[in-house]
Amino acid sequence: MSEQIKAAVLGAGYMGSAITFPLSDNRIKVNLWGTWLDDKLVESSLRGFHPKLKKTLPENVSLYYWQDLGAALEDVNVIFIAVTSEGFVNIFQKMLDNIDRDKDYTFFKLTKGFVEYRGKIVRATEAAFDIFAEKFPDKELKIVTVGGPVRALDLSHRVVSASMYGLSDSKIKDTARSFCTDYYRIFINDDIKSVELCSAFKNIYAMASGICDGLYGGQKGGFYYNTVSFLFNQACLEIAEIVQAAGGNRQTAFDLAGIGDLHVTSTAGRNRKFGEMVGKGMDGHDAFKEMYGQGEYGEGYMALKLAIPWIKSEIPDITVKTPLLFSLNNIIFNKYEPAGEFSKLMSNLGV
Amino acid sequence: MSEQIKAAVLGAGYMGSAITFPLSDNRIKVNLWGTWLDDKLVESSLRGFHPKLKKTLPENVSLYYWQDLGAALEDVNVIFIAVTSEGFVNIFQKMLDNIDRDKDYTFFKLTKGFVEYRGKIVRATEAAFDIFAEKFPDKELKIVTVGGPVRALDLSHRVVSASMYGLSDSKIKDTARSFCTDYYRIFINDDIKSVELCSAFKNIYAMASGICDGLYGGQKGGFYYNTVSFLFNQACLEIAEIVQAAGGNRQTAFDLAGIGDLHVTSTAGRNRKFGEMVGKGMDGHDAFKEMYGQGEYGEGYMALKLAIPWIKSEIPDITVKTPLLFSLNNIIFNKYEPAGEFSKLMSNLGV
Repeated sequence: MSEQIKAAVLGAGYMGSAITFPLSDNRIKVNLWGTWLDDKLVESSLRGFHPKLKKTLPENVSLYYWQDLGAALEDVNVIFIAVTSEGFVNIFQKMLDNIDRDKDYTFFKLTKGFVEYRGKIVRATEAAFDIFAEKFPDKELKIVTVGGPVRALDLSHRVVSASMYGLSDSKIKDTARSFCTDYYRIFINDDIKSVELCSAFKNIYAMASGICDGLYGGQKGGFYYNTVSFLFNQACLEIAEIVQAAGGNRQTAFDLAGIGDLHVTSTAGRNRKFGEMVGKGMDGHDAFKEMYGQGEYGEGYMALKLAIPWIKSEIPDITVKTPLLFSLNNIIFNKYEPAGEFSKLMSNLGV
Repeated sequence: MSEQIKAAVLGAGYMGSAITFPLSDNRIKVNLWGTWLDDKLVESSLRGFHPKLKKTLPENVSLYYWQDLGAALEDVNVIFIAVTSEGFVNIFQKMLDNIDRDKDYTFFKLTKGFVEYRGKIVRATEAAFDIFAEKFPDKELKIVTVGGPVRALDLSHRVVSASMYGLSDSKIKDTARSFCTDYYRIFINDDIKSVELCSAFKNIYAMASGICDGLYGGQKGGFYYNTVSFLFNQACLEIAEIVQAAGGNRQTAFDLAGIGDLHVTSTAGRNRKFGEMVGKGMDGHDAFKEMYGQGEYGEGYMALKLAIPWIKSEIPDITVKTPLLFSLNNIIFNKYEPAGEFSKLMSNLGV
């Protein structure tokens, strides 16, 4: 990209703040904008300490409070969207109200999950395309779905991380290339929809590892890894089935946005932590609320809540091929007892 | 299988002893035979305590010392081979010397890795077919390759475990079905060669997770999961390439014997532990010797040692597609510094 990149990042939570590290290290000026829920994060970051990443943000970052969205978007040509899936539609609309109709922008969506949009449950980019077309009927939306495996904390420590970008336009590929550093490695996949689906479903399936830990961690000591790995494998297979049924390439599930991102999220993410609380016996809704109260958003819980009706509406024939997904739904939303539900699931699999 | 099953298990280490649990729980009588290296295991097990599994073996198990191979094989029709890859050829030959020429046997190979056989490096079952044909030219060898993800300790705790059996004969499938319990779930895959290759290579690639832990565990605190997941994903992709180049179905790598078994071995296996020692700076050969001295066999080390010449001879074109494999070889056998080697590897991947 010959044009100088200047970026805005919407959402000053974990991932929004973490992505500023490779950007800043590439000497890209970044405006980091916090939503109305991020006031404390912005305030503390302005004083030199980001409370979630527990460190100072890098040098090329300017911070903006929610009231200053217009200023945060001034002069930028690249916009990262890193708000929660719940906030996505609203903030995408507000953002379009504040950009310059005559300029070209490339959007990078870090948000993962489904959104509710005009009474339907859709992928976040589907809503984005619709909103954009209504606002700018003569323009084409350029939006990239960014997948993992990237845990924000690790990225902010500049540890080698790989990220799968769903895109097919070679110019945008050049833009993406300019975000790379020796520690931030970008991989391109033109099966864009599948990258987006993988990112939503990996958050859901990562809860299974957490449930195992909550369930067996005390009782079975260190001797339940076989079960965790069995469920991990089952999750990969089910994501592949979902991707394929939705018209994508199942190989996308067997790559960074699928296997890789499920791996990191299952090992160390918030969805794993959420699952652990549920595995110990807490009701799904209560666990979500408790984490929310601590400023942690259980994205997998929210994704599952929307994924079930999405599947039933979009790819209803898949349900026999995704028994783990429905077990998770039974456990998290229908108060089924985790041990019994997992046992039933697993004794139905195999010869 | 209408015929009553009676089993022998050769090798009284972790896996040989652990497989007796589902067998015994199915009321199958099992003769567990220890090699000359297993004398202490047999002796202690006879007194009611298996020193590796740290528990009593189940009720239907009879123990045999190495001198009593003939007795251990008397009256059995199913034979599990659970010795190390180094011991496989020798013990397979000795076993054939002690079975009844006029009876039918089904063999289940738990051994994972390559073997040296008549000056060549081959898959263990290739050697088995050759040895068997020479001894019994008029008989057909029925041998099943058993894959994971099964950690022996977990299995002996009767935790839900899935195991992929490489087989295509429907009668043998019935035999395998009779080993199933509510906690031991068997999955069948007729891409037999690939199941065997996955089992060998997962031990190799699991060392990468260990190296990461050894390398970054102290220095980067809890902030290197992205790198581990990146390498985990890369390992899955490379195993798929190897399987495909060897004439198998790459999907086999993206299932229990590949993803699943790599997952459990990377999390909790001996190969992970071996990698950790190397990641902390120990020479590969020294780490292998130290573990050996503690009675732990570094199967991944031995598999890698043989895999490199096997690849160069069998599928030489694959080498550009398996950079992680060659990085591991550089680190473990050629004294390359792990941090530098991993950095170089990862900065060559991506856009």
